[in-house]
Amino acid sequence: MRTRVREFRGAGPVDREDRLATEEPLEVRCAWPSSPARRVAVTMRTPGHDFELAAGFLYAEGVLGGSADLHRVAYCTDTTLSPEQEFNVVTVDLAGPPRSMPAERYAGLSAASSACGVCGTESIDDVMALLDVAPGPGETHPLVDPAVVHMLPDRLRSAQKVFDSTGGLHAAGLFSADGEALVVREDIGRHNAVDKVVGSRLLAGEPTGTPVMAVSGRIGFEIVQKAVAAGVGVLAAVGAPSSLAVDLARRAGLCTIGFVGPERFVTYTAPERLGV
Amino acid sequence: MRTRVREFRGAGPVDREDRLATEEPLEVRCAWPSSPARRVAVTMRTPGHDFELAAGFLYAEGVLGGSADLHRVAYCTDTTLSPEQEFNVVTVDLAGPPRSMPAERYAGLSAASSACGVCGTESIDDVMALLDVAPGPGETHPLVDPAVVHMLPDRLRSAQKVFDSTGGLHAAGLFSADGEALVVREDIGRHNAVDKVVGSRLLAGEPTGTPVMAVSGRIGFEIVQKAVAAGVGVLAAVGAPSSLAVDLARRAGLCTIGFVGPERFVTYTAPERLGV
Repeated sequence: MRTRVREFRGAGPVDREDRLATEEPLEVRCAWPSSPARRVAVTMRTPGHDFELAAGFLYAEGVLGGSADLHRVAYCTDTTLSPEQEFNVVTVDLAGPPRSMPAERYAGLSAASSACGVCGTESIDDVMALLDVAPGPGETHPLVDPAVVHMLPDRLRSAQKVFDSTGGLHAAGLFSADGEALVVREDIGRHNAVDKVVGSRLLAGEPTGTPVMAVSGRIGFEIVQKAVAAGVGVLAAVGAPSSLAVDLARRAGLCTIGFVGPERFVTYTAPERLGV
Repeated sequence: MRTRVREFRGAGPVDREDRLATEEPLEVRCAWPSSPARRVAVTMRTPGHDFELAAGFLYAEGVLGGSADLHRVAYCTDTTLSPEQEFNVVTVDLAGPPRSMPAERYAGLSAASSACGVCGTESIDDVMALLDVAPGPGETHPLVDPAVVHMLPDRLRSAQKVFDSTGGLHAAGLFSADGEALVVREDIGRHNAVDKVVGSRLLAGEPTGTPVMAVSGRIGFEIVQKAVAAGVGVLAAVGAPSSLAVDLARRAGLCTIGFVGPERFVTYTAPERLGV
């Protein structure tokens, strides 16, 4: 979106035009055979790749087990929607009953946000129960060379430069073990960017459990949750991980890496995935 | 929290100890005369200033109208809680009935997250309805000199340095018109840091509508929502605002400033608050 701004610098204020990162609410609905569509989330997101976002979100929540569970993803054509809402409501039709009921996790809940994995959890017990994960499928991933890790932020940024002119967006990407970018997505919300890359693979019928996931920000608990659900082997970030993120990653056998740059990075869990 | 990490640099990997930003779930409960405590939110936060976070969150949600509405804020002493949960559940007792029912906004909802203002909203209509705000009380604020704006990130950081050794936390601060820091708080969640500074003023019985609020990250819709609810005149950030954030700020008469640094800043709305 374009807007008029006033820039203050040494020489005094100058009026000019600027671009803003677009932020709009997206409502995700979910339906399955013999069940009408129900609202499961409202999230603030950057429009674009909305179907991927919806699919990736439901996958991270365990509602969707894989691309075979997807029947159709479409913008809602509900006639009660105003024109401006029309592209802000996405319905995901499952091929069969959901793997876990969105209605269970969001019991009686009208909306939640994909920005928060803890949203809709019944209580603290439920959040802490999320720590009891089975080890991920990551044992089968090829080792990732430390030289590849150093390159990740640059590869993320070069994919980003193509479409971001606002400087205000977060990025997430899935990579092969030798650092090839398989998919990179952006969003004003860090969690949405992760849902979009995972959803992209789902919609393409490709495995979500790639050797590497890279994110532009920090590693919070919910980012690790999504990485574990996707089945990636290494999660690398420009920022630092939190205490609970490291706790969950350790239990899941996920390699977490922070402060990634050309000269340096720090592994917090499972460094053996780098083969050193 | 301390953890063992492996740092990769030119000379090869070195094992050492590192500190992590602490992230733990906080459950906020709300009670009022003749109403038992009900759960209104679960948020991932950095422990510390939990009472401020709970009070600030309920204030931003409109449940609490001011410090006169607060009867008591305390950690929950529910005997069913495990020792590790004891300091992760806060109950806010209101002096009277809530200004707006948390049960309405969170109809039938068991939990939401303070990380997301849109959480618990009934639908996109409700999110868009949040744009229909009355102009804030900010007209009465003194003008803020551009020289003061340039200093804000530095003042935020110097307050932060005292207590953050992880580099992984967001900060928010309330300032006087001449740039004096009234309160600065940190959190792993950007929205929580804002709730904490506002809650701090509430618990101290001080006005929340200070001339300036500064935040370390970007300005999303929900940050503007919280700044408008608090009644501040100027919202300054190191990062950029989003489209919907600018839209809401314009309607509310809030001055929003992005990319604040010693040499430069950009105003997106209400530059007249800087008197230039």
